[in-house]
Amino acid sequence: MTSPFDVAGLGNAIVDVIAPVDDAFLLKHQIAKGVMTLIDDFRAAQLYEALVKPSEIGGGSAANTMAGLASLGGNGLFVGKVKRDRLGESFSRSMKDIGVTFRVPFAEEGPPTACCMIAVTPDGQRSMSTYLGASRELTPADINDEEIASASIVYVEGYLWDLPDAKAAIKKAIAAAKKAGRKIAFTLSDPFCVSRWRDEFRALMKSDIDILFANEEEAKALFEVEEFDSVLQAFRHWHGTAAMTRSAKGCVVAKGNEVHVIDAVPVKHVVDTTGAGDQYAAAFLYGLTHGKHLADCGRLGSLAAAEVISHYGARPETPLKSLARTAGLI
Amino acid sequence: MTSPFDVAGLGNAIVDVIAPVDDAFLLKHQIAKGVMTLIDDFRAAQLYEALVKPSEIGGGSAANTMAGLASLGGNGLFVGKVKRDRLGESFSRSMKDIGVTFRVPFAEEGPPTACCMIAVTPDGQRSMSTYLGASRELTPADINDEEIASASIVYVEGYLWDLPDAKAAIKKAIAAAKKAGRKIAFTLSDPFCVSRWRDEFRALMKSDIDILFANEEEAKALFEVEEFDSVLQAFRHWHGTAAMTRSAKGCVVAKGNEVHVIDAVPVKHVVDTTGAGDQYAAAFLYGLTHGKHLADCGRLGSLAAAEVISHYGARPETPLKSLARTAGLI
Repeated sequence: MTSPFDVAGLGNAIVDVIAPVDDAFLLKHQIAKGVMTLIDDFRAAQLYEALVKPSEIGGGSAANTMAGLASLGGNGLFVGKVKRDRLGESFSRSMKDIGVTFRVPFAEEGPPTACCMIAVTPDGQRSMSTYLGASRELTPADINDEEIASASIVYVEGYLWDLPDAKAAIKKAIAAAKKAGRKIAFTLSDPFCVSRWRDEFRALMKSDIDILFANEEEAKALFEVEEFDSVLQAFRHWHGTAAMTRSAKGCVVAKGNEVHVIDAVPVKHVVDTTGAGDQYAAAFLYGLTHGKHLADCGRLGSLAAAEVISHYGARPETPLKSLARTAGLI
Repeated sequence: MTSPFDVAGLGNAIVDVIAPVDDAFLLKHQIAKGVMTLIDDFRAAQLYEALVKPSEIGGGSAANTMAGLASLGGNGLFVGKVKRDRLGESFSRSMKDIGVTFRVPFAEEGPPTACCMIAVTPDGQRSMSTYLGASRELTPADINDEEIASASIVYVEGYLWDLPDAKAAIKKAIAAAKKAGRKIAFTLSDPFCVSRWRDEFRALMKSDIDILFANEEEAKALFEVEEFDSVLQAFRHWHGTAAMTRSAKGCVVAKGNEVHVIDAVPVKHVVDTTGAGDQYAAAFLYGLTHGKHLADCGRLGSLAAAEVISHYGARPETPLKSLARTAGLI
């Protein structure tokens, strides 16, 4: 028997490999500065070899969200695929260390564990080279229906939709959760992902999704509109809860006739916006699974996003639980 | 017989007297730099005498709004009090020149026409000394019930509530408008004004007001809350339409279950924010009286506010009608 979880998160299991480099390194390895590029196994091995004294930290969008949930004291399960290799074991250990349950069996063969090599130049820019590797190998066999059904909310990363096997795994998880009367949360992940799967995402919203996370650009891409208010009006006709993040403009949370306009929590110096959406979702989901009012879920999300953008890295450094307590939100 | 008006605006009738000065002038005349100070008739006469080559332009919050309405091609009536003196005749002429009907009889005795002396230092700062004078003399006798009842909307400036006679005039105008089935719009004017009259303003919202204009600080003062979302939730329980301006954050328009979040129109260089709220109200009211959807009323308001903050002065320099046409809003 599994114990009940607040949230079960499905996503790409990625290890972030971060190392300081100089601009000559970027030139030599033909890395486009400041952006994220998908790379193949050959280049991944080459780059990994070249990085000096890299630090490794668990990453991946939904995995980061589960880390944030744990930082608030929530009980999370992560479902994603790593290989039984050094990085895979590191990913697995990092999840367990922060209190996130991670039980998907290691892949024993096939591509190595996914990694995102982050080359940080002295000017503070982060140039990312992502190799998806084993994270693409998630299949329906990795979904434990009973475990999934024990989570109040199943949270799915849109990026997974690119992979047919992962998509089948998501559908299996959704079916198990729905059968148990659980809620389905989904994040649109990125505007390009939305453009690729717009029709399927909208169909999924109609049939299964209860809570949708989207930043402004993703939401505009979803409805093919150019103005934020058009997004808001489109969501008003949807049965679910839409949590829309707007960077410095804060967030808007809409559920039918309920609309909340929540300001961003001021940040003195924005260091690195990576993980803002992941941590927003983490704290919002914590709120939802702990009986908080929608407006407070939005406030919790804004608080967590403010924490993560005030330092490098996509996971909280200050325990979100203490921040939320200080703010009187939990 | 009066012709029908889109909006009848009630407010303080003030002439802005603008002149370039140096810092020595401010020191000599003990003018607090960069702020607005109310002054008495003695100081007003003294200052007016001292200003060199001042330019005079009609001002006052609701009067500015009627000017904006005219700039959009709307048909406005202004109700406010000036004396038959040089400034009063100048105010009267300026309203007529821009196509706003202004028929309140001149005061033949009592204090001179209100003026706001704006001393502009070389650093671009505006130091304002306001003398309310004759504008305080508005009484119920100045309200022509038939004229008021011919306007689709009666728009009232909150500042007037400070004056017992003007308050009685407002009540007479509201009664005439309500009897004819017209709508009442009200602007909270400023947070201090709200603090002075909170209970009366809230009672008036319940009994008479249909459309309320408030900037964020005024709205927070009205409900004694600290967060914007609390304002929004409070307005959601009100029967009327709330148009809330948030400076660079744009505006939020709420009418029961209808909520619109409209972005600010980007302005390259903000020169002078005076009149932003006045012009927002002008264009919003134009939209309302010309069958526009609430979201488009908000968009029109944002457009007009962006125009007026991009130059000195509280009235539009570029015809708002052409701007609104270019934006596809009318």
